[in-house]
Amino acid sequence: MELDKVVETVLGRIFVQLEASGRHVHVTREQAEVLFGHGLTPKRPLSQPGQYLANERVTVIGPKGEFQNVAVLGPERKEAQVEISLTDGKTLGLTPPVKLSGDVSGSPGATLVGTVGRVIIDRGVIAARRHIHMTPEDAARFGVKDKQVVRLQTYTNRPLVFGDTVVRVSPDFATYVHLDYDEANACGFQNGDLGRILP
Amino acid sequence: MELDKVVETVLGRIFVQLEASGRHVHVTREQAEVLFGHGLTPKRPLSQPGQYLANERVTVIGPKGEFQNVAVLGPERKEAQVEISLTDGKTLGLTPPVKLSGDVSGSPGATLVGTVGRVIIDRGVIAARRHIHMTPEDAARFGVKDKQVVRLQTYTNRPLVFGDTVVRVSPDFATYVHLDYDEANACGFQNGDLGRILP
Repeated sequence: MELDKVVETVLGRIFVQLEASGRHVHVTREQAEVLFGHGLTPKRPLSQPGQYLANERVTVIGPKGEFQNVAVLGPERKEAQVEISLTDGKTLGLTPPVKLSGDVSGSPGATLVGTVGRVIIDRGVIAARRHIHMTPEDAARFGVKDKQVVRLQTYTNRPLVFGDTVVRVSPDFATYVHLDYDEANACGFQNGDLGRILP
Repeated sequence: MELDKVVETVLGRIFVQLEASGRHVHVTREQAEVLFGHGLTPKRPLSQPGQYLANERVTVIGPKGEFQNVAVLGPERKEAQVEISLTDGKTLGLTPPVKLSGDVSGSPGATLVGTVGRVIIDRGVIAARRHIHMTPEDAARFGVKDKQVVRLQTYTNRPLVFGDTVVRVSPDFATYVHLDYDEANACGFQNGDLGRILP
């Protein structure tokens, strides 16, 4: 075992890697056809296995403003979802509820514009509740369970402890904390920064 | 003593009121003359005694973008200061250091445009380090001193504990926590929300 692999393994037993998620969109296969004339195509893989940044991008339009060139993540899902920060919500003129990804009940809609068409969704705009993707092995090691709410100390330029952080456990995940950009900037996150689940 | 006054007094011995500061600018008297043709004029008072939102507004221009209609706070100061969030910094194309208000050493500059003129400042753009303005009476009650760094629990929609929060004590202050909008959104702040200094 090389030294940096050892270091990484040791750190991974104490700390969790932080990641900031920029605003992004998930669409269905049918919506991808309308927006781009074809399904999503992968540009590069993301930290979560099987997930990718698509080559395709959209404009997201709200009542008061829009964002152009917004990332679309694949593969396609069963329902569209637009994940933005509360700051982004101000720009769009929307108040996204803070919800776990996949829970879009009661959320506002938006208009998505692609290269060949547009789609109006009547719900799906959320601010993703902060969460930790975790493998079953890491969950066992940290002594946490799927859906458990934990506190997370950040070792960052503006250190803080995030309460209300949901653990999501699946063999399909890699272990990463996902913050939105309000949260990332509030703690002064920089790439490579670590967090620690507090007892 | 009326009941709501009693309630307010009791709450004030346990909690501290949170406030979110939007992006804003301080200018010197000379700069106000160049920008507006006259000194600043008060539109409405702020929570800190003697401080006011001015009727005058500026456009702040950075290398990559600008913000129009930015609040100017009075009275005038000895040196210009532009207080923005790290998110705002991305839009302007600047990386503001996280510093206490008044400490602009090593910070980038910007162009300010008023109704009659423009001013180029070669430093002064910062992200204000989170802080608590406090009266000497409240400082004594909470057992903290000027410049002390404390942890602050927020009782908000997305609760968290801000580390690295600086207490500033002066008889000229009213007791309020000042957060920027990254921090306010990261904790889900809404007007009237409270925080508590942790031991």
